[in-house]
Amino acid sequence: MTLTLTSPLDMHLHLRDGEMLQTVAPLTAQHFSGAIIMPNLLPPIVTKEALLAYRERILSTLPDTNISSFTPLMTLFFRPDYSREFLEEIHPDLAAIKLYPAGITTNSEGGLSGFDVEELSPVLTAMGDLGIPLCIHGETNGFVMDREAEFVPVYEKLAAAFPDLKIIMEHITTAASVAALDRFDNLYATITLHHLLITLDDVAGGMLQPHLFCKPIAKRYEDREALLQVALNAHPKVMFGSDSAPHPQDAKECPGCAAGVFTAPIALQALAALFDKYDKLDNLQAFVNTNACCIYGITPPRTTVTLKKQPFTVPVKYGEVVPMFAGQEIGWSITTKF
Amino acid sequence: MTLTLTSPLDMHLHLRDGEMLQTVAPLTAQHFSGAIIMPNLLPPIVTKEALLAYRERILSTLPDTNISSFTPLMTLFFRPDYSREFLEEIHPDLAAIKLYPAGITTNSEGGLSGFDVEELSPVLTAMGDLGIPLCIHGETNGFVMDREAEFVPVYEKLAAAFPDLKIIMEHITTAASVAALDRFDNLYATITLHHLLITLDDVAGGMLQPHLFCKPIAKRYEDREALLQVALNAHPKVMFGSDSAPHPQDAKECPGCAAGVFTAPIALQALAALFDKYDKLDNLQAFVNTNACCIYGITPPRTTVTLKKQPFTVPVKYGEVVPMFAGQEIGWSITTKF
Repeated sequence: MTLTLTSPLDMHLHLRDGEMLQTVAPLTAQHFSGAIIMPNLLPPIVTKEALLAYRERILSTLPDTNISSFTPLMTLFFRPDYSREFLEEIHPDLAAIKLYPAGITTNSEGGLSGFDVEELSPVLTAMGDLGIPLCIHGETNGFVMDREAEFVPVYEKLAAAFPDLKIIMEHITTAASVAALDRFDNLYATITLHHLLITLDDVAGGMLQPHLFCKPIAKRYEDREALLQVALNAHPKVMFGSDSAPHPQDAKECPGCAAGVFTAPIALQALAALFDKYDKLDNLQAFVNTNACCIYGITPPRTTVTLKKQPFTVPVKYGEVVPMFAGQEIGWSITTKF
Repeated sequence: MTLTLTSPLDMHLHLRDGEMLQTVAPLTAQHFSGAIIMPNLLPPIVTKEALLAYRERILSTLPDTNISSFTPLMTLFFRPDYSREFLEEIHPDLAAIKLYPAGITTNSEGGLSGFDVEELSPVLTAMGDLGIPLCIHGETNGFVMDREAEFVPVYEKLAAAFPDLKIIMEHITTAASVAALDRFDNLYATITLHHLLITLDDVAGGMLQPHLFCKPIAKRYEDREALLQVALNAHPKVMFGSDSAPHPQDAKECPGCAAGVFTAPIALQALAALFDKYDKLDNLQAFVNTNACCIYGITPPRTTVTLKKQPFTVPVKYGEVVPMFAGQEIGWSITTKF
């Protein structure tokens, strides 16, 4: 059995910089046609120069064959004081702006502390007018299992106040976020591979598994079920975004383990296995491409990825990074990307 | 400021065996007058010979000065088929019997799978008649955050069916278990140091902290608050039980990290700091000794431990084991044990 995907996209990706970028960017470009590149570097990407330079650094890691078949969809780190003029100027090079509440995840220290509609009105109105989506890591500083659900009212407040703004609820993990999707026309979501597969039981219910530790943390069975329902059934407002986050092995297997699951090179295979398991392979194209193209209004390079129902043994490491399913077998493998 | 504790007891302790036993047993004997020694070795302690031999191995690790000032209070691993004759014979050497639901924690694979009152009646009736307390690790196989609360009905069923049996709810972590304490005369509880101090946020709310990963996992703020209330206010049915569980550093800082926090050598100092913080130092004696002596009907060796409000820097390791607060300062230190 084979499956052909057209121009698969990863709508939430961390590539980091330097040596790590060299390791991971080619792995994504090998399978995907484009990816939303998160801007939480140190310092974060907040200028056109930094954004263009980062795009160049990403492209410079790719083999010639992938440069025309992979588009890094660049983002800025949200600042409430971006002017309309600045946004107009950077718009052609910009896919979205990513908003982090302060201190919520890796390199988010410079994030936003309040969500005052009046204060945010100039920048969010301009983004809505220009059609620049706002991607949000939606968590409060509350108890780890409640943070995302507590943030839903903020999503709703912003969605109501800025109806022309497309708001992407990034890497949603709860039934509460799924329910919010259908209450506002302008709320959308990305969902990761790992949140479709695991719950907190997989992270901390048996032995502790640092390589499955991520933010937002994996939640309850009923939350995973709600995510699965919208992903498997091609809900038009959800997109695949891996949130693949590479950390070196020694930053994961230690006290103070960094948050993030590395899935980029195994994501399409694992998604095929998952959608196949539920007899929903026909809906995978919507999840990994069509929905995103509609929501973002983008036309990524036309590529074709062929997957085969044939076991693939995941490497134990990619460089210094331990992937999800390290050393294990996935039932589907990738044969080609053209 | 100083504080004198008489014969402090640790009513839930893991000493393991072999080299690890050599490392950790003397640390407990240095501070405590007695400790309930958990029987989940491989194989578990289920015979009088094994129990006496383990006691000998424990005592053989102690310096001469501690042999008369520290009593290992020995336990058996619960089996539903222990006969009344066997229990009568072993009773003088036995402090309690520990029941593990199957597969719930370290070396609990041989544990109990059902809680059928009729089936358990012979052994639990005999234990009640003989005054042998039943210590239970009360968790179901459910979702990690719900396991303990889901087990409360089992505690209550057993408490109602065997009113003469003293049932100790071990290392309770939830407000639900605290509430059950007052519903049955024969329900008691141990509480660890770490569950008085941390929530799931400390384990997985920021970076992941494998050295704070334990079973039952730390819960919510309202759960910690309920535990604090009964501990600080000298509720007569709660006892200190550290559940101190030594694992070598490399078994904690790895994929598949073992469950357990190592607190034995720093527990009294940290308890003094905690009770001092809440201005409840007068109640610490009840928590670490008086309640346990009443509940178990024991008279441990008379010792005196003097603590001083003077910073103590916790070693980064004891042997290969990383303790709680490794390298950090605790506001109280131990000056002497006589």
